[in-house]
Amino acid sequence: MSQLLKHIHSPKELRLLNQKDLPQLAQELRNFIINIVATKEGHLGASLGVVELTIALHYVFNTPEDQLIWDVGHQAYGHKILTGRKEIFDTNRQIGGISGFPKRDESVYDAFGVGHASTSISAALGMAIASQLKGNVDKQHIAVIGDASIAGGMAFEGLNHAGVTNANLLVILNDNAIGIDPSVGALKQYLTQVKKGIQRKNNIIEALNIDYSGPIDGHDIDKIIVELNRLKTVKGPKFLHIITTKGKGLKQAEENQVTYHAPGQFNASTGDIISKTPSAFTKYQDVFGHTIVELAKQNKNIVGITPAMPTGSSLKYMMDEMPERAFDVGIAEQHAVTLAAGMATQGLIPFCNIYSTFLQRAYDQIIHDVALQKLPVIFCLDRAGLVGEDGATHHGVFDVSYLRCIPNLILFAPRNEMELRNIMYTAQLGLQLPIAIRYPRGAGVTVNWKQPFTKIDIGKGLQLKEGKTLAVLSIGTIAKNVSEAITQCKQPENIAHYDMRFVKPLDETLLHSVFKNYQTIITVEDNAINGGFGSTVLEFAAAHNYKNTMKVLGIPDRFIEHGSVTELQQSVGLDTHSLKSFFELHSI
Amino acid sequence: MSQLLKHIHSPKELRLLNQKDLPQLAQELRNFIINIVATKEGHLGASLGVVELTIALHYVFNTPEDQLIWDVGHQAYGHKILTGRKEIFDTNRQIGGISGFPKRDESVYDAFGVGHASTSISAALGMAIASQLKGNVDKQHIAVIGDASIAGGMAFEGLNHAGVTNANLLVILNDNAIGIDPSVGALKQYLTQVKKGIQRKNNIIEALNIDYSGPIDGHDIDKIIVELNRLKTVKGPKFLHIITTKGKGLKQAEENQVTYHAPGQFNASTGDIISKTPSAFTKYQDVFGHTIVELAKQNKNIVGITPAMPTGSSLKYMMDEMPERAFDVGIAEQHAVTLAAGMATQGLIPFCNIYSTFLQRAYDQIIHDVALQKLPVIFCLDRAGLVGEDGATHHGVFDVSYLRCIPNLILFAPRNEMELRNIMYTAQLGLQLPIAIRYPRGAGVTVNWKQPFTKIDIGKGLQLKEGKTLAVLSIGTIAKNVSEAITQCKQPENIAHYDMRFVKPLDETLLHSVFKNYQTIITVEDNAINGGFGSTVLEFAAAHNYKNTMKVLGIPDRFIEHGSVTELQQSVGLDTHSLKSFFELHSI
Repeated sequence: MSQLLKHIHSPKELRLLNQKDLPQLAQELRNFIINIVATKEGHLGASLGVVELTIALHYVFNTPEDQLIWDVGHQAYGHKILTGRKEIFDTNRQIGGISGFPKRDESVYDAFGVGHASTSISAALGMAIASQLKGNVDKQHIAVIGDASIAGGMAFEGLNHAGVTNANLLVILNDNAIGIDPSVGALKQYLTQVKKGIQRKNNIIEALNIDYSGPIDGHDIDKIIVELNRLKTVKGPKFLHIITTKGKGLKQAEENQVTYHAPGQFNASTGDIISKTPSAFTKYQDVFGHTIVELAKQNKNIVGITPAMPTGSSLKYMMDEMPERAFDVGIAEQHAVTLAAGMATQGLIPFCNIYSTFLQRAYDQIIHDVALQKLPVIFCLDRAGLVGEDGATHHGVFDVSYLRCIPNLILFAPRNEMELRNIMYTAQLGLQLPIAIRYPRGAGVTVNWKQPFTKIDIGKGLQLKEGKTLAVLSIGTIAKNVSEAITQCKQPENIAHYDMRFVKPLDETLLHSVFKNYQTIITVEDNAINGGFGSTVLEFAAAHNYKNTMKVLGIPDRFIEHGSVTELQQSVGLDTHSLKSFFELHSI
Repeated sequence: MSQLLKHIHSPKELRLLNQKDLPQLAQELRNFIINIVATKEGHLGASLGVVELTIALHYVFNTPEDQLIWDVGHQAYGHKILTGRKEIFDTNRQIGGISGFPKRDESVYDAFGVGHASTSISAALGMAIASQLKGNVDKQHIAVIGDASIAGGMAFEGLNHAGVTNANLLVILNDNAIGIDPSVGALKQYLTQVKKGIQRKNNIIEALNIDYSGPIDGHDIDKIIVELNRLKTVKGPKFLHIITTKGKGLKQAEENQVTYHAPGQFNASTGDIISKTPSAFTKYQDVFGHTIVELAKQNKNIVGITPAMPTGSSLKYMMDEMPERAFDVGIAEQHAVTLAAGMATQGLIPFCNIYSTFLQRAYDQIIHDVALQKLPVIFCLDRAGLVGEDGATHHGVFDVSYLRCIPNLILFAPRNEMELRNIMYTAQLGLQLPIAIRYPRGAGVTVNWKQPFTKIDIGKGLQLKEGKTLAVLSIGTIAKNVSEAITQCKQPENIAHYDMRFVKPLDETLLHSVFKNYQTIITVEDNAINGGFGSTVLEFAAAHNYKNTMKVLGIPDRFIEHGSVTELQQSVGLDTHSLKSFFELHSI
């Protein structure tokens, strides 16, 4: 079947092909992606959409000497396969295997590591300016960015700078009108008008002093090659607008683009998704999604905000039921937070749902626009802790550290679904301060989680289990591993377990009791040890002159790669077995 | 002299004036600002530029019911004076006095607290959407934003969202072609062409589906009033482009706009600046600015980057001497950091100089684009610690906490000018990791700081003074207060002083020696106690089972207001006198 692809081990071999054979190679590459992702899972639609572009780029440009950057990187599977990773592509996203994103450590063809959106223009411009300073006049620097990512403010900052340089930068807009969910915003409307030929008057790119060409059909490989060859000779920053179809070549993927962004296992021939045995447990995302709808029906001041993750966060339930009160603002975390702050000044109660790793994009806005003004915005930090296969760019393991230094901010981590529901209920009753609620990706632990709401006392922790010599203090859903580990210990009766719930404000009354009653105290969290929950407890102990033996367990001071959550927990000692051994050692 | 202004205690009284009297009021308001700022200091040019706009806005709109947001807020002095703060305007920026920025706590007319750039559109849009949901169809929501601030990515995110709403939002672009330093970037070029009537084809604002009008003369009060009244009746988002002159009405301020942004004391009649007695000491900014030039002459790979602070950071020295290697990228911290990352991949050595408080804007980029990839970018964090009169929005007191959880990042704080020079020298020799160097605003402590470069051992602290019972560990320039405090103690011989220099990597060898030799250890820093340097030492102690008595001194868990640095240090117990008392208590 694979007549051409099997001979391609690097772009050098690709460039030896006759141009007329490239459509066949595209077909083979597409099939290769489909066949592997069908069984090994991963991101599908984005890579299928850029098969032709990927081939054309490596055919025309002299990679890896020329620098090619894929924004976000979901679309880079074809790139990986053509650049020496075909044989190991079936290890994609597995522990020890290749990353789901371009990564400098992995290949010289991965010019810049990606994962978060809207970085490619800045990075490529930096490279282009460097080449200019070094006198490398022929070196090319290409950023491939989607229409959802280019709406992020950072991309605009990059274009705004590029337009006043004569750097050899090519920005390729891969316009398929969708990110993970359909693109939104005025720029998307504008691009739609451009595609339809309606919008001819106002060219935003030309207004920024950048050479614009397009739109052209991004599945016409010959057209792309002609255009790329032409652009190679154009000096200064230039912008090529291509139109593609996400999921191209697999009918279901084209028709259900959101589902087939990352469909899980599917039948490679028919495209039908292979259903998994349904979990007995609801995922935290759906607990959030259903609960906000339930609360919003009772409290008309509640609004919901997501920056481009309606499906991932499950805010889509609210968007479906009450579209006027639920907002997808696109890849714009900074705007999302300050928009929420503005709404809060008028008495609305905004639930601003942002993945922990992406909230890093809005750090200043939390401090400056929300916390400083004590505006009661409710931040729901989805995908906190280890996220699994998305790896180092996506783990939400810094939020406790970067949030707990912010005055006025309440910081809570639910242990289970009911705690998530109840803190959401409590928060909308009328806190006078902002609150951040961190919870993980994936399934919860309780079958009957939809129980009547109970108000949570702000700043109150819980004793889950009594003990004699050792107290384990946990925060969030890692409590499950802690509980199981204690049960497996030889003398579980020695070990007490506390769910502190609030990183801020700390339950100091409970802590005084803990420090007075146990010689040894171990804290457990799925956040960085550096500056995390454990260090809060250490600060408390120092302030009150406690001299107990203390141990802090959490994520060590290194970036954690990809793998299943269980595998990653094992690698950092947060799995049940490792915790059991540690607890036994300290409870004798 | 002040025939009209003396009767205006709120916008209600302003609205009773005849429109023909407003130019006289403008003159009186301008004089009032000049007279107060001439003696009390503060930001001058921006407020002089919007005197007519300020009067027109409060004349036409029904403030405070209508929501008026001043982006950044340097330009809001006239607004403060017209909204009930005329009598206390002479307390501006002083401890206990009014803030230099709009602030919700201070007045109902300050619809949103500001200080950092580019937030106003998002906040005003949030308010406008809230009004829409509440059925307040007549309520107006106005964001006044400068041409430097609107280039920040966050402002673009706000416009991109606004364009697909029908929210009652008015964005007024106050286009004076300058922020603190002259504006840069393609958008600035574009606006210049619009002003000259060259650019008619591509209207960026209209492309984003927002009603555009202008440009009009922002000093013609009648024209502004006509236009604002017209825009009140236009539904949905709209954009008014006005042209103003920064420093309008004071000749020197118009001619030297950078200097007169915040000129210090000056003669109100002549405009001449009243020279201060020159400090014997050079400010850290100039140590940075001169040193980078010195190093860049020897190392051709060095480049410098600032997001819109060439004067404030003193990168201007390099921009003057080697303009092709020093980049002002405008108010674009996110872009600045990832641009630096891109440059570093090509072997350049970027010194990326960003104020500590503004680095909060690029937090994700430091983690995701720099540290994860181990790119050796050199971050110079200017204005770390307490900054003084700019107050709560500008203190750089979180950076140690938010940076020390990031793997791969070296974090250093120089004690004096030579340490700053030497770490800059060391960093450019070829670190394999990124480094952040935090130093304060203002004058250093050494007369002859320009000494030959010495390489600093990464991760090595220093003992500054021996002692017997108590060890004080400090980080950064607060060492000066610590040294003085120890000297003033009754038994200084009891107290040892260590400059740890590196928050990361910690000098564990030195720490082991400290923990073994002193019963009591006190850490001192001008960063938040929560998660700061002290908590790093606590984590070390817990990991190694040390049970010494430990105390952590630093910024407590609240936002610190404005005042002189000395006054603010007193308020948090970091002044020499407070430290002395604390040390004595713990060294007996």
